[in-house]
Amino acid sequence: MTQVLKSARILDVKGGVDGGTHLADILVDGGYIMRIAEHVDVPDGAVAMDASHFLVTPGLVNAHGHLAMTLLRGLADEVPLEAWLTRYMFPREARMTGDDVYYGTLLALAEGIMSGTTAFAEMYFHEDDVARAVAEAGVRANLCIGASSSPDDAGKMKACEDFVLRWNGREGGRILAGFGPHAPYTTTPSFVRENFERARDLGVVVQFHLHETRHELEQFADQYGASPISCYADQGLFDAPPRLLAAHCVHMTLRDARILHDAGASISLNAQSNLKLGSGIPDYRLLLDSGVNLCVGTDGAASNDNCDMLEEVRVLGLLMKGSGMDPSGISNAQLLAMATSNGAAALGFDGVGTLEEGAAADLVLWNLDDESFCPGNSTLSHLLWSANSRAADSVMVAGSWVMEHRELTGIDLARVQSEVATRARRLAQA
Amino acid sequence: MTQVLKSARILDVKGGVDGGTHLADILVDGGYIMRIAEHVDVPDGAVAMDASHFLVTPGLVNAHGHLAMTLLRGLADEVPLEAWLTRYMFPREARMTGDDVYYGTLLALAEGIMSGTTAFAEMYFHEDDVARAVAEAGVRANLCIGASSSPDDAGKMKACEDFVLRWNGREGGRILAGFGPHAPYTTTPSFVRENFERARDLGVVVQFHLHETRHELEQFADQYGASPISCYADQGLFDAPPRLLAAHCVHMTLRDARILHDAGASISLNAQSNLKLGSGIPDYRLLLDSGVNLCVGTDGAASNDNCDMLEEVRVLGLLMKGSGMDPSGISNAQLLAMATSNGAAALGFDGVGTLEEGAAADLVLWNLDDESFCPGNSTLSHLLWSANSRAADSVMVAGSWVMEHRELTGIDLARVQSEVATRARRLAQA
Repeated sequence: MTQVLKSARILDVKGGVDGGTHLADILVDGGYIMRIAEHVDVPDGAVAMDASHFLVTPGLVNAHGHLAMTLLRGLADEVPLEAWLTRYMFPREARMTGDDVYYGTLLALAEGIMSGTTAFAEMYFHEDDVARAVAEAGVRANLCIGASSSPDDAGKMKACEDFVLRWNGREGGRILAGFGPHAPYTTTPSFVRENFERARDLGVVVQFHLHETRHELEQFADQYGASPISCYADQGLFDAPPRLLAAHCVHMTLRDARILHDAGASISLNAQSNLKLGSGIPDYRLLLDSGVNLCVGTDGAASNDNCDMLEEVRVLGLLMKGSGMDPSGISNAQLLAMATSNGAAALGFDGVGTLEEGAAADLVLWNLDDESFCPGNSTLSHLLWSANSRAADSVMVAGSWVMEHRELTGIDLARVQSEVATRARRLAQA
Repeated sequence: MTQVLKSARILDVKGGVDGGTHLADILVDGGYIMRIAEHVDVPDGAVAMDASHFLVTPGLVNAHGHLAMTLLRGLADEVPLEAWLTRYMFPREARMTGDDVYYGTLLALAEGIMSGTTAFAEMYFHEDDVARAVAEAGVRANLCIGASSSPDDAGKMKACEDFVLRWNGREGGRILAGFGPHAPYTTTPSFVRENFERARDLGVVVQFHLHETRHELEQFADQYGASPISCYADQGLFDAPPRLLAAHCVHMTLRDARILHDAGASISLNAQSNLKLGSGIPDYRLLLDSGVNLCVGTDGAASNDNCDMLEEVRVLGLLMKGSGMDPSGISNAQLLAMATSNGAAALGFDGVGTLEEGAAADLVLWNLDDESFCPGNSTLSHLLWSANSRAADSVMVAGSWVMEHRELTGIDLARVQSEVATRARRLAQA
């Protein structure tokens, strides 16, 4: 469907500088932004929409998460990662069915869309059911099965590869699939190598939890004498690397960060999850200085505890300023890029995450009449620092509305909430 | 008006432990909670409300702020406190009229109410216009004129005392007034002494910015050879102290914290403002161990950038866990107390901030059907860590509704937004 958003307010963010806003018409056709101009004629048969009360931005990209963990939120707020995983998460995850994962994923996608998110990175299990939910919700996602080493590494690799072959590029390219070796503490370096090589050969993304806790680094150093990233580099895993999306990277040396940068990798920063689980606060200056592509993720809702990317990017921005006691530690324009175009690149969605002619029509219409955008001294500042995520009025992915005036088009939210509540009660009975 | 909230869900939080929830009827009469029981008969002439879809909690208490700074938000996101004050805030504040302050305050109060806040600490100027706004909005507030030393300290003290005498206890006790020496770097110790003594004699609260930045402490040490709190203590200012509400307290020694504790003082933690301005991250463990009464404030919207107490308490909780790398650094029950009863005590509102018979009827009804409360594994956890503040459906102060089903009863929000936007444009033209 051809559509023209008339008189939308758009941000003038160029070269990392916030240059205010201006009004424009936006022509969307075939899933892409075809024209942005002061005036665009409405073609015959096209739909025109008055967008004069809205700020239009690229959709937010959630670069790390385990969507169905909405089922498990609120179970344990005061324990560190290791105990949280082994005592609270793993036992319940072992009892999850495909339909549990399907409904839990739909709730996360609903929360994401309703706070302005159009693309998601995701690693979990029952991943075909995740893909089914993503297909219905209408969003983009890069999906992988989270895989740990086991006596049957070959069987696991086969299952993961089959998943990739089954889903990568589906739904008109909205769904990408890749590999997901879980973490250094649940995989052997040789299993990681296999994942990297298979992903590189297939041209798909590897999602990988890396350098999340001090405990992980200490444990790995005991066993291998180096940090995971340094160890993998020493073993040649980054000589011909895949597109790597590393999650967390809380505890990093400059060498670690440069290895990722030189490998063309991306880092998803997950500030709220790392704070809540007590994993730590990264040295953001070091990460920024390394030049590695930084993006933003909520992690699973059991440790965040929601899928609100506007909240996530705000807390990250606050922490980037506050932890270094430097209010200029990150600019508004950089934060916006991290939450949009950087994330899209990390997920492998090329041509996504910017508001320009030829880019994918993944858009959020933010209601500027919302009190959180008042008084309008700086629209970008208000979006990042003041706005409530529920000022997201309508959301478009690949030219189709996934939310119109706060109504989801692909998800029956009331039904999903009811299903998730029922299923969570069953899972909570340990 | 006598009212009965039927079948409300309430939290079983006792002795710092989250014990789940139960259903109860709540009888409100004469501004107080008169009865909480499994079943309460509806008296003749009373209004009954079906509260079965709501979690009912005490209203949140915002323990530090400069309400009219909504006018100035978004002006400067990347500068430290000193430059932010002198280059961006002070010049514009010098041009503010009483009506500017009145409308800016109404916007902040609206934001606060709409995110579940029933009481506010506030320090600014044109304070009679602030009081006028508070009276109309229907909330509680403790107000003071922010006062710096000047050649006419006596005249300033007189003006501040007149304000206290004019407003303290007004509106059926909803408005309290006190003194507000601005900060150690804008006042002389003798002016602080006068404020403390006058406040003690009148039995009112002193609000005071204390130990906010490292720069403040270095500057003060150069001039007086000690930290502000230690210096005031050495000069005997805490020998017979007033009810002191210290804002920020980012940079503290255990001695400083113990001085405040022994003086019966309270500290308002303002995590987002301190992070955004790069002021630093407190040693929360030290503050908790000192036993001083800790509460939570948003600070002004020019450095926060909103008046959303749920967001504020969430970021504070994340930081209390994350900065010490200890997920048990604060419990859910403690966080709730900091944002409610601790704050009410700090503001001088006795019998406010708890949900029990005899307490003031300052209540928030949170919509449990909101997706951010799904799946319901722990209602208190979901409130603190997942809920969007707009799940606040209705808010009552002293037995009267200040918001019913998202509609403010005392503030014409559309008019206020329009006035604030117009006035902010005028002020932004430096």
